Amino acid sequence: MSPGQPSQRPVPRIGVDLNADLGEGFGPWRLTDDEALLAVITSANVACGFHAGDPLIMRRVCASAAARGVAIGAQVAYRDLAGFGRRRMDVPGDVLAADVLYQLAALDGIARAEGTRVRYVKAHGALYNTAMDDPLQAEAIAAAVTAYDRALPLLGLPDSELATAAAAAGLPYVAEAFADRAYRDGRLVPRSEPDAVHRDPAAVVAQAVALAESGAASICVHGDTPGAVGLAAAVRTALLDAGFDLEPFAP
Amino acid sequence: MSPGQPSQRPVPRIGVDLNADLGEGFGPWRLTDDEALLAVITSANVACGFHAGDPLIMRRVCASAAARGVAIGAQVAYRDLAGFGRRRMDVPGDVLAADVLYQLAALDGIARAEGTRVRYVKAHGALYNTAMDDPLQAEAIAAAVTAYDRALPLLGLPDSELATAAAAAGLPYVAEAFADRAYRDGRLVPRSEPDAVHRDPAAVVAQAVALAESGAASICVHGDTPGAVGLAAAVRTALLDAGFDLEPFAP
Amino acid sequence: MSPGQPSQRPVPRIGVDLNADLGEGFGPWRLTDDEALLAVITSANVACGFHAGDPLIMRRVCASAAARGVAIGAQVAYRDLAGFGRRRMDVPGDVLAADVLYQLAALDGIARAEGTRVRYVKAHGALYNTAMDDPLQAEAIAAAVTAYDRALPLLGLPDSELATAAAAAGLPYVAEAFADRAYRDGRLVPRSEPDAVHRDPAAVVAQAVALAESGAASICVHGDTPGAVGLAAAVRTALLDAGFDLEPFAP
Amino acid sequence: MSPGQPSQRPVPRIGVDLNADLGEGFGPWRLTDDEALLAVITSANVACGFHAGDPLIMRRVCASAAARGVAIGAQVAYRDLAGFGRRRMDVPGDVLAADVLYQLAALDGIARAEGTRVRYVKAHGALYNTAMDDPLQAEAIAAAVTAYDRALPLLGLPDSELATAAAAAGLPYVAEAFADRAYRDGRLVPRSEPDAVHRDPAAVVAQAVALAESGAASICVHGDTPGAVGLAAAVRTALLDAGFDLEPFAP
Repeated sequence: MSPGQPSQRPVPRIGVDLNADLGEGFGPWRLTDDEALLAVITSANVACGFHAGDPLIMRRVCASAAARGVAIGAQVAYRDLAGFGRRRMDVPGDVLAADVLYQLAALDGIARAEGTRVRYVKAHGALYNTAMDDPLQAEAIAAAVTAYDRALPLLGLPDSELATAAAAAGLPYVAEAFADRAYRDGRLVPRSEPDAVHRDPAAVVAQAVALAESGAASICVHGDTPGAVGLAAAVRTALLDAGFDLEPFAP
Repeated sequence: MSPGQPSQRPVPRIGVDLNADLGEGFGPWRLTDDEALLAVITSANVACGFHAGDPLIMRRVCASAAARGVAIGAQVAYRDLAGFGRRRMDVPGDVLAADVLYQLAALDGIARAEGTRVRYVKAHGALYNTAMDDPLQAEAIAAAVTAYDRALPLLGLPDSELATAAAAAGLPYVAEAFADRAYRDGRLVPRSEPDAVHRDPAAVVAQAVALAESGAASICVHGDTPGAVGLAAAVRTALLDAGFDLEPFAP
Repeated sequence: MSPGQPSQRPVPRIGVDLNADLGEGFGPWRLTDDEALLAVITSANVACGFHAGDPLIMRRVCASAAARGVAIGAQVAYRDLAGFGRRRMDVPGDVLAADVLYQLAALDGIARAEGTRVRYVKAHGALYNTAMDDPLQAEAIAAAVTAYDRALPLLGLPDSELATAAAAAGLPYVAEAFADRAYRDGRLVPRSEPDAVHRDPAAVVAQAVALAESGAASICVHGDTPGAVGLAAAVRTALLDAGFDLEPFAP
Repeated sequence: MSPGQPSQRPVPRIGVDLNADLGEGFGPWRLTDDEALLAVITSANVACGFHAGDPLIMRRVCASAAARGVAIGAQVAYRDLAGFGRRRMDVPGDVLAADVLYQLAALDGIARAEGTRVRYVKAHGALYNTAMDDPLQAEAIAAAVTAYDRALPLLGLPDSELATAAAAAGLPYVAEAFADRAYRDGRLVPRSEPDAVHRDPAAVVAQAVALAESGAASICVHGDTPGAVGLAAAVRTALLDAGFDLEPFAP
């Protein structure tokens, strides 16, 4: 604090989290520039092998995230590599719970071998969407996480079946918001509508700041499209400029 | 102790371990009668999903093993479901280490969710054989286990590259013996020779007792052939009759 | 023809087809006794690798079917080995059509290498059920078969979306009936009802004969449960005794 | 023909083939710019699903190749998606033959649905290398192709076990040469040596022309590295400038 600053008393900065999907390659293939994204975000949703992510990719992402202080989340998915986990599947609850537990445990063990650990769980793709409105699949996810570690938060949409299942299971639940998705009356505009996704970078950045100011604990940005890393970096800069601290929601 | 017995003072019984492969199904398929085997053995080498074993099967085997006090080992393998992990593969060391770490962590997390944990690691099929004579793959396995938990023993053949790698990594190593394989000068007779495998059940039982008497820490029995569970049970009974305690080598 | 029979002139025997699922193993695993079933049925729905069936199993089944004069059908499925194709999946139409084409072509090529060829196409499991009531998936299947060979019949339930799609595509469509499923007003009783499946072998046999007498072109029997092959053989015997010829519906 | 040229009579142009690997994506992932490569090459080695290539990618590549008159070859591989088919595997001969037959048939059926067909077979990655020096795997490949279509040529290195197996099976065999690999005494310099691969684009172009002039039937170019398509296009231009016709070796 130098004498020339407007206030002698420091104002506590408010933290906000930026999360993005990482490690979504397999074998020779890559989708995301993991290293570039890890320099921008504070929470990495790491693919666990069922929709993407082989063990070596998982290990490298964990090592790099640990070195940068980025929190690792288990991005659990349907067992559907060919469909990238984007196709709804009618998986029975006991199978889904075991599949989630397997993925979570595999990533957590790899993270621990790299000196860190999994801090939260987020569903991917079609499982994410199904868990928001299907109580059986939501409960299966919550049951798997509860069986592994009752302190691990789930990350998802507010007011969802997954939020309900987490509450019933006694699991922490953190609501995320999307920088690039249009909202109406507090809900996401369905993707089937023409203006569901913001295409103007300035709009994405402005919405991210507005979401942070309205108290969002975590803001999701995307890294798998051209220009996405640059846009995520612009969101980060705007949040810092607006006075927020960038920090993981799950310490 | 009845008066006719030779000694009034109890002789401490010596423990010996019986290990077998379990959980080697996938989806609708099964190879082994896991429940019947769990009533006979003391250590279960549980398939981790790469050569066999889906998460629900893994979870059920872990739950049942925990209930019976059977020790769980991670049976890690090449990623080769179609070949059941029986085909040698030239997997680079960093890939193999990550693959082993992933499998070990997944099973351990499932085991912990069921109130127990993985007590040891054993390679499966072609990886088992390769790890005995190939230092690079042996070191990759030892490195993966070391990164996960330096106290976890490896189970394998004595005087092997894997034993060497474990020693170099500071990992415990436990040598196993086979009840149904012929030995010559302390080494296994190669399977290419006609008398490599004992076909006479009485010979299998007798060899198991002889191995236990010679100090074998763990004896491997097989469960995936017709009559195998009955033979394993006969081995168990003979060991008990010979005065051994059946108990896991890794408590 | 003995004098006591009602007619001196031979009545032409009417043909009926028995179809069953075959080749539903993978790698080391098996579900069905393919050889025993091939001695009983006239049409084999052969798994093509997506829910079950590896290339060697496919080849062996084709060779044996060719030797016995059993017609080979391509049993196409969702890409879901872990779920055995029994889980509904929201697969886009172009992906599903390509998946069906791939499976059909692979099996037909293997069949041709063994001196025969694929005579019809039948969907498996959840794809079978979805194709009956979902026009998009039904059209994708019909489009794939049309692109491959316009003369190949589809086998399925009567009065279904798949029948409609086949008609629109100009594909032959053959309706099958189930020996072991209860019917009400000409429709299958849903599996959710308690009496949906006949458990009494005599009822299964009687229903098979009744279905044949009512003109069913193909009767489906099951081979993947204990006693199933014996039951299928009893159906065959009863149909022969009732004066039917057992022969493939697709010559 | 201008008056200053040495001959008034047109010299028949000699044909040469350019082959490259295509369709090496899976699900959401891509390695190669298939459309750009198809504008340059005359033969496309299309991945068949075992190391890369899902059915929709295969279908799109076949449709585009058919539209451009590019010949389609089946690029058969080990079943190893995670390793991209680059890891040697000890696959028994009957399994390998069935795997090759399955891949070849699947691609050929897709090609036929798009109005063309498979014109040749080339092994990929580790199977390519193994087939050059291992007679058992070479014979398995030749047996599979023979069982499918005795007129389909195999494409590979000259003086190899695969060439021997093709000759024994009565299959056509076409030797390819590499534009970017160093040769010594007519053999490829092993990749383990520092100058095994030409890094100078001019050297690659010059070697391609020299190979064509020495009578190579097909020249392999690579499309999976940055700048590869541009380099392949430069090779094409240089060959045309040198008076060669670019045309498939397998019409």
